[in-house]
Amino acid sequence: MGEFELIRRYFAPMAKATKPALDGSGLLLGVGDDCAIQRVPANQDLVFSVDTLVEGVHFPLGYCPRFLGWRALAVAVSDLAAMGAQPVCFTLALTLPAADEAWLEGFAAGLAEAGQQFGIVLAGGDTTRGPLTLSLQVHGTVPQGQALRRDGAREGDLVCVSGQLGDAGAALEFLYDTAPATDAASLLQRYHCPQPRLELGIALRSMASAAIDISDGLHADLLHILRASGVGATIDLAALPLSPALRRIKGGAAAGFALQSGDDYELCVTVPEQRWAAASRELQQQLTVIGQVQQEPGLRLNADAGMVYSQRPGFDHFSIT
Amino acid sequence: MGEFELIRRYFAPMAKATKPALDGSGLLLGVGDDCAIQRVPANQDLVFSVDTLVEGVHFPLGYCPRFLGWRALAVAVSDLAAMGAQPVCFTLALTLPAADEAWLEGFAAGLAEAGQQFGIVLAGGDTTRGPLTLSLQVHGTVPQGQALRRDGAREGDLVCVSGQLGDAGAALEFLYDTAPATDAASLLQRYHCPQPRLELGIALRSMASAAIDISDGLHADLLHILRASGVGATIDLAALPLSPALRRIKGGAAAGFALQSGDDYELCVTVPEQRWAAASRELQQQLTVIGQVQQEPGLRLNADAGMVYSQRPGFDHFSIT
Repeated sequence: MGEFELIRRYFAPMAKATKPALDGSGLLLGVGDDCAIQRVPANQDLVFSVDTLVEGVHFPLGYCPRFLGWRALAVAVSDLAAMGAQPVCFTLALTLPAADEAWLEGFAAGLAEAGQQFGIVLAGGDTTRGPLTLSLQVHGTVPQGQALRRDGAREGDLVCVSGQLGDAGAALEFLYDTAPATDAASLLQRYHCPQPRLELGIALRSMASAAIDISDGLHADLLHILRASGVGATIDLAALPLSPALRRIKGGAAAGFALQSGDDYELCVTVPEQRWAAASRELQQQLTVIGQVQQEPGLRLNADAGMVYSQRPGFDHFSIT
Repeated sequence: MGEFELIRRYFAPMAKATKPALDGSGLLLGVGDDCAIQRVPANQDLVFSVDTLVEGVHFPLGYCPRFLGWRALAVAVSDLAAMGAQPVCFTLALTLPAADEAWLEGFAAGLAEAGQQFGIVLAGGDTTRGPLTLSLQVHGTVPQGQALRRDGAREGDLVCVSGQLGDAGAALEFLYDTAPATDAASLLQRYHCPQPRLELGIALRSMASAAIDISDGLHADLLHILRASGVGATIDLAALPLSPALRRIKGGAAAGFALQSGDDYELCVTVPEQRWAAASRELQQQLTVIGQVQQEPGLRLNADAGMVYSQRPGFDHFSIT
């Protein structure tokens, strides 16, 4: 099967879902020309981010292609959520060792499911031969000047996180279980099918002073906010939102584990106290306050006696050697 | 050296060259947040394209990193030229087997030189560990509705190409020469340092009915235009623009070689006859008329007796197996 036939069969259907918006904005030209064409609505900015996943580094060898399709797009779209953006379209640069049809079918199915759920369409891409590597670039739009950035945290702001932390990281030890128990299965669901917090990100546009998505772990990602903003923070380890499954499996080490482990794709944001007080109950319920921003640089932990944790830096590809 | 330090040292300087335009458009936020932010000028569309280069597939093993930096960006920017777009910014997804500082220094230098010449700045990226692979996505802008596409060729349009064809392909056999002769050196220059036809693409916005850049060879790329437009063409092999170096090295096989060989990154366009007649002498001189569009689908060749050529399809990664 030729490269173009392969692209046509598995990816072109995903690129046909485009409907122009009432104002004529959106993806005007997708797969099949030298470039795709996107019209950004008046008074909006384009936000975009690229993420690369390498087999054996970012996902296990022989990983289920359907989960991979979902995860790859979810991970990339999570960066749009962290900016408060509305997803529009994405490109896929796919390097494959061979044109394995069963693999492509599963991968394309997972990608299409995720695309449909997140409201994002395929705009173009490139298919090449080589070791399995995916680069996805996602495009979103946000009203001019309203994008959530990392550099706006100020002294006194509350540090908040969405959802529950640590589940995806804890799932790694069960990845090859053929019949996982209930707790392990619920953790695995969080690893295989991360849910980018798109609606929450959009709701936080007028509320958060800074935002990031938690990909490398709360500790490392919160440090990005603090450094970009020129501030520090103290967080309360006991306040970290944890699932019952993680508590049962990790015991007293659960919170320390959740602080360091990645792949959750929840949001970590800072919120001025007044805005928090004025926020709707519905919005407050989607976030957990875990600490407060301070003038002094660095990240400090309040931990109860008996809590187990280690202060390792976040996951960093080039410090592993 | 950590991943973030590595990115900071070699790539952040390239991302600092941003100057906002008078209307506030351009790259507003580059490297260092979850997403970059680009403001597209009012009445313009965003055009974008992604290209992946894999070591040993798209460039030779151990290829000079400085040439690779230039080539990677030139090849990607060439897609903007083919749309008649003005370059704005690009992302780089770089997968590296190790953080080799000498390699990174050369690569970043070549990339920076190309970026400066083409007027395009680094907006963001991702650095991961794995087999050497690059994915570049380039962003440009074009007045709404004026992008050059592949599907506009009509019966009677002239088929034109820019520059000279076949040089880059002919350079491949001299790639490992330590002291190439004059002719070989001029071919190698075309391979190592392709020049995307940006100004020509912009000038062709109101003149060409269809356009593509020649990456896989004239034969394959012109077929993309013809198929997308639902037409055919006859081209005159003797009319193909060839360099003196290629003529000397390939003799009677030069034109046939130029028809099939890739990597030239010249433009192939179709132009309605009336617009060609009305075009400036300066614009006409940058193009060579090589044939004409016809209603009957397919690509036909006029060749003189003694010309050597073979009708192979264009380069297609997944038909090689």
